[in-house]
Amino acid sequence: MTKKAVVLLSGGLDSTVTAYVAKKNIGRMGKLYAITFGYGQLHGREANSARDIAKELGIEGHVFFPVSINNLVESSLVGKGEIPTEEPKGIPSTWVPQRNSIFLALAFAYAETVGANSVYIGVNHLDYSGYPDCRPEFISSMERSLNLASKRFTETGKEISIVAPLQFSTKAEIIKIGESLGVDFSKTWSCYRGGAKACGRCPSCLIRLKAFKELGLDDPIEYEKV
Amino acid sequence: MTKKAVVLLSGGLDSTVTAYVAKKNIGRMGKLYAITFGYGQLHGREANSARDIAKELGIEGHVFFPVSINNLVESSLVGKGEIPTEEPKGIPSTWVPQRNSIFLALAFAYAETVGANSVYIGVNHLDYSGYPDCRPEFISSMERSLNLASKRFTETGKEISIVAPLQFSTKAEIIKIGESLGVDFSKTWSCYRGGAKACGRCPSCLIRLKAFKELGLDDPIEYEKV
Repeated sequence: MTKKAVVLLSGGLDSTVTAYVAKKNIGRMGKLYAITFGYGQLHGREANSARDIAKELGIEGHVFFPVSINNLVESSLVGKGEIPTEEPKGIPSTWVPQRNSIFLALAFAYAETVGANSVYIGVNHLDYSGYPDCRPEFISSMERSLNLASKRFTETGKEISIVAPLQFSTKAEIIKIGESLGVDFSKTWSCYRGGAKACGRCPSCLIRLKAFKELGLDDPIEYEKV
Repeated sequence: MTKKAVVLLSGGLDSTVTAYVAKKNIGRMGKLYAITFGYGQLHGREANSARDIAKELGIEGHVFFPVSINNLVESSLVGKGEIPTEEPKGIPSTWVPQRNSIFLALAFAYAETVGANSVYIGVNHLDYSGYPDCRPEFISSMERSLNLASKRFTETGKEISIVAPLQFSTKAEIIKIGESLGVDFSKTWSCYRGGAKACGRCPSCLIRLKAFKELGLDDPIEYEKV
């Protein structure tokens, strides 16, 4: 049977490495699908990265799905308040309530539609900036919930798995996994801002830069200021 | 402390009665919020009902949230295939994969934003047309999942509850509850089609009509054909 998987692809470093892991896991005959969400981020830079990466991976179907969480929630990532310039303590203001819950439910619907057996998501709980919806307990609980709501599980008992292959990896380990799978990091985008170059100051840039430095590697994307 | 609740309000019979139950439960000083989803249904008739009912209830905030599941999934309810004309056996073609999962995740995000303690949803599993995402196991599992992803629960241990007050009620019992709370059923809309009058033939009309008949009551909305 053809293995099919859906990957949540933002165009960031983690989701890109996750897409490559998924591609490897489903094998040469497998079919990979991607879903990219537009939720009122400040920029479309990540979405362009997602498109390039999907092309590179020869993805079967790629859905860009708008879901305007910005109209619903208050969060600096979607235009309210200031983006912090330091690594945060606790849950930062860039957190969008239930973002991964919303994204996983939608990706699961897409997986049911295309007949995929698994949904890949690039969360990791070590370097995760304190987002509760990146925790392993959440991921496994959500897997159970969504299967209970699924037609396929109800009728056949066959589950769709939520796979979070980077769940216990540090950012440096994720970069190493990506390197071993041939990820072109110059195509990925992590910065919370949407300039021509990455800002080098937001929490996401800081975590990324630190990890490349730890490995003694150069980050191939351009930064405004390092 | 002011009790706050968010209700998923489609404008149908079940969600309307649920809104009245929520209003009663939070008390005179409570604040009720509503969220209505636009997901590519064939008509906007239900949305108008939702607006009228929200007005009637003096709702604090009412969000109309577009989420175009129609682009993602195949289902007759969102424009693909035929709407069945009989009460269905098993899971019918009007089922939208993960609809309640997606709606609950979004409603939970709204609840977190307005500081509500509970999310009310009008599912019921007896007369439920075989939708797996109306099952009690799903609802309680989803409640746990979404709390695990919530900032409030992570930081304070205080849960947001998902309340499904009609979960074990038949359609006739729901109508009786609604009557006791003063629901104006002429404002509710249950038909899957969006004509000037309800069609009287789709599964939703059939279930509704049967229940009013069982109670010896007249359904105050107009039907094309009964």
